[in-house]
Amino acid sequence: MTASRTAPTDLYFDFLCPFAWRGVELADVLRREQRLSFRLRHFSLVQGNHPENPDRKNPTWWLHEQGAGEGSPSQQASLSAFLAGQAAALQGEEAAWAFTLALLRARHEHKGELDEGTIRAAAGEAGLDLTRLEATLADDAVLREALAADLRDAAALGVFGTPTFVLPDGHAAYLRFSKLIRDGTGAQALWELYGEVLHSGAGIETIKRPR
Amino acid sequence: MTASRTAPTDLYFDFLCPFAWRGVELADVLRREQRLSFRLRHFSLVQGNHPENPDRKNPTWWLHEQGAGEGSPSQQASLSAFLAGQAAALQGEEAAWAFTLALLRARHEHKGELDEGTIRAAAGEAGLDLTRLEATLADDAVLREALAADLRDAAALGVFGTPTFVLPDGHAAYLRFSKLIRDGTGAQALWELYGEVLHSGAGIETIKRPR
Repeated sequence: MTASRTAPTDLYFDFLCPFAWRGVELADVLRREQRLSFRLRHFSLVQGNHPENPDRKNPTWWLHEQGAGEGSPSQQASLSAFLAGQAAALQGEEAAWAFTLALLRARHEHKGELDEGTIRAAAGEAGLDLTRLEATLADDAVLREALAADLRDAAALGVFGTPTFVLPDGHAAYLRFSKLIRDGTGAQALWELYGEVLHSGAGIETIKRPR
Repeated sequence: MTASRTAPTDLYFDFLCPFAWRGVELADVLRREQRLSFRLRHFSLVQGNHPENPDRKNPTWWLHEQGAGEGSPSQQASLSAFLAGQAAALQGEEAAWAFTLALLRARHEHKGELDEGTIRAAAGEAGLDLTRLEATLADDAVLREALAADLRDAAALGVFGTPTFVLPDGHAAYLRFSKLIRDGTGAQALWELYGEVLHSGAGIETIKRPR
């Protein structure tokens, strides 16, 4: 039981997605208050929904291969945000969480645009070493390779939306919920319920409300 | 609390769907052993996935308007099965359950074809009045109107797959699970977990495993 508390749960998210924001907030409460371990990982909705990628598990179009400034605004924004997130992670795990939360909140709580200005402001708010950040971003091959590793793992798993959590025991599911949860009791209740669904003897594959 | 035990939960299903079969088996255990009340209702996957119905809530192509013997084999089979199900319901609630279970089991447990022969065999196994059944089916305007009512209610709700349960309090969700559950303990555990998800304070909208 101790092992499962320390092995990380992978949390796939996209900065574009308001449900991913709530998922990262949930994980942040759980890691701080319950000492659960989560690993922040990137999944791209732009890539997942790209018309050249009909087979989710075998994409031919990859976001990390796109040039800066190419493609649609959401494509550019998501690539910039992911590369900055990978750069933040090079400054440590806490830096990655601080930057990720700051940028998700700027976009989804405070309704800012996901653009270079918002990304830099989030980096400042997160207390990143900004000089080092800019140097890393200016020569981004390492960042793109780290992003590629996340995108490849997500594709292999068949991730289709965010947030998707992958438990240490391999059980995984997309978890979409509408309420922002920042209290420990609420976070624990949701996390336990989610685990019960994944581990139910009934083999639950989907619970989805009609909209 | 007594009221919610007696007000029925609507159970939308399609004879074509193996997950709907498991959902009807689940409901049958719960109604027999827990005295929960379920109402069998028809949702058509052929209609829901029809290319002329891009807007799930406002279909233009309706299964109940199709002629007997028209369309694809699965369209013909599902219309025949639904009309027979509606005819069985005219012989009483227990007749409807017996027929529905017999036909779902014939198709999904015993891997029979969903065709006129299997439908008649299920009617016999369910103990229906077969003479009355044939008379009802021969003049099927009433059956088609009853099917239309189910299809309209499903469309208004946005049902997209089966089984979908609609609780008396209005909470509703598609529930897909892989294990056949015929024991009371297992059925109760799954049903309580499903209810916890629907009533969670987190506003859970979707839990879905990647495939």
